[in-house]
Amino acid sequence: MKQSVTAGVDIGGTNTVVGLINDSGTCVLKSNSPTLGQGSAEQFVLRLAEAIRQLLRELPGESTLGGIGIAAPAANYRKGIIQNSANLQWKTIEIVGMMKQHFDLPIAVMNDANAAALGEMRNGCTKGMKNSIVITLGTGLGAGIVTDGHLLYGENGVAGELGHVIVDPNGRICGCGRRGCAETYVSATGIRRTVFELLAYNATESKLRDISFNQLTSEKTYELAIQGDPIARDAFLITGRHLGLLLSNIAAVFDPEAIVLSGGLMNAGDLLLDPTKESFDQNRLDLKWRKVLILKSHLADGEAAILGASWLVTETAAKEHDVPAQMEGSLR
Amino acid sequence: MKQSVTAGVDIGGTNTVVGLINDSGTCVLKSNSPTLGQGSAEQFVLRLAEAIRQLLRELPGESTLGGIGIAAPAANYRKGIIQNSANLQWKTIEIVGMMKQHFDLPIAVMNDANAAALGEMRNGCTKGMKNSIVITLGTGLGAGIVTDGHLLYGENGVAGELGHVIVDPNGRICGCGRRGCAETYVSATGIRRTVFELLAYNATESKLRDISFNQLTSEKTYELAIQGDPIARDAFLITGRHLGLLLSNIAAVFDPEAIVLSGGLMNAGDLLLDPTKESFDQNRLDLKWRKVLILKSHLADGEAAILGASWLVTETAAKEHDVPAQMEGSLR
Repeated sequence: MKQSVTAGVDIGGTNTVVGLINDSGTCVLKSNSPTLGQGSAEQFVLRLAEAIRQLLRELPGESTLGGIGIAAPAANYRKGIIQNSANLQWKTIEIVGMMKQHFDLPIAVMNDANAAALGEMRNGCTKGMKNSIVITLGTGLGAGIVTDGHLLYGENGVAGELGHVIVDPNGRICGCGRRGCAETYVSATGIRRTVFELLAYNATESKLRDISFNQLTSEKTYELAIQGDPIARDAFLITGRHLGLLLSNIAAVFDPEAIVLSGGLMNAGDLLLDPTKESFDQNRLDLKWRKVLILKSHLADGEAAILGASWLVTETAAKEHDVPAQMEGSLR
Repeated sequence: MKQSVTAGVDIGGTNTVVGLINDSGTCVLKSNSPTLGQGSAEQFVLRLAEAIRQLLRELPGESTLGGIGIAAPAANYRKGIIQNSANLQWKTIEIVGMMKQHFDLPIAVMNDANAAALGEMRNGCTKGMKNSIVITLGTGLGAGIVTDGHLLYGENGVAGELGHVIVDPNGRICGCGRRGCAETYVSATGIRRTVFELLAYNATESKLRDISFNQLTSEKTYELAIQGDPIARDAFLITGRHLGLLLSNIAAVFDPEAIVLSGGLMNAGDLLLDPTKESFDQNRLDLKWRKVLILKSHLADGEAAILGASWLVTETAAKEHDVPAQMEGSLR
């Protein structure tokens, strides 16, 4: 019997994840490659198409591809494009149109954080919840917000920019041109900036003193923190404090059942989660009867987004664009 | 012909507004009295009932009262009570039950900021809008948030606590026990604190130096600002700057079509609105194609809340609790 699968793609600022998802919402095969590289948007899309074909070849037994769901920063579902993303090198990519030149199938693109929120609802931490927030901590800080079972979309489809909440008006300069945005502190790039601030401020010895700004990754910082490097440990502590305060404000505004933390930076696990929870508890609005869960996504890197994006395609194709209620928001 | 009216009540930290609203959503008669005073919650409810009866007597021609909608801080619609309000002197008031001893009619209570958001949708600035936020600037800072045509309610019905977003972790002590909450800067009590900070910091002459903290009202501050008092003017400027930054963050999170400013403090008009808009423009996430309107409510003080609360009662009574979609949120 032929297996029916959908492809999910998560285009991140650093890596792009491609996966095949079966009908029960399990990712059966996945690959990961750098997003950036020489060449045009056409060549990038060609690489993506080839990555999907390669996975299909690797899948045991016969299979049919039912559609492709793409998650990307600054995606516009209605127009089928990725537009002015701060973290991608191409200005505008007509991703759906370009992908259709390779596959004659239902294809859709949606905001990556919204896709992650759908993915967590489909097969992750927030299954069955009506009010939840998924925070993605990668190159930037994104958020997919579900209120009363629906994705929060806003008037123009750009709600949920928690990464660009100004937490310090005199703070760090952000890629958006302003100062003190949350993602300049809480993201993979944010923790790198914190490391360099600590290196400047302290006199402590640290292996981080031998690594250049451009060379430093959050993975390396994690590795050194585990080895006991004091600067690396402090960087996670400070990042967690910022994140906990941000989450306490988010909880006051949205009153969610749970906030799920995901993305590359969360590979640091308890090293980041512990100070985050501690800071959340210190700062949260004390409604004694209310409990807001702070959870780490148990899905693998990028998996929530590909589950969510592919779900969008499966469900819209099955229902001839009469999409399930929880996705409505993502479809304007 | 008998005129059919509904009563709307807005219980504020300082004043309580009672009004009669006709079927077309116009407030035909209104009274205003201090909320605080000697006595028990029973005596307060008795005064409220008497205020409603007095308005009915004053109304020309014959009339029938169809129901009473009450807006209050920390109200719980489901339980029909006001619970642990920071700005009221009574711990818990079983307001619906107590009011029913005076009137055998449909009676409901709802959160005041949500009521204001419904009132603005019914007959104010946000008529026909799907994504809007109403901010009430009184003793505290409240917010009623409408996303995709529905009131934002959250998992426990306490979403929208924008007044308790921490804007400065080392900032002013708040009634909630934490530090730096938005309402310690942006509210009638916030501007008073700003005045006293300015009196302490500056050496400038000011008539404000003759007024005690407890005597000072935002009305007096406004009056002196209009007369050119430098401290009073600065207090409005600083309050506007805080508010503009807060609104820019709210716009990044919710992507609303409009944010409406209402409540007693907005009687200052352009003195507060101008620096607010300026600060909003300086701080907003620069999405050139997006326009977020910052509006001053054109409804009289407390009128949005009584319009909204009475609408709730009219509509629920008419439809036997099959309430209109936009109110769903307020009914859990």
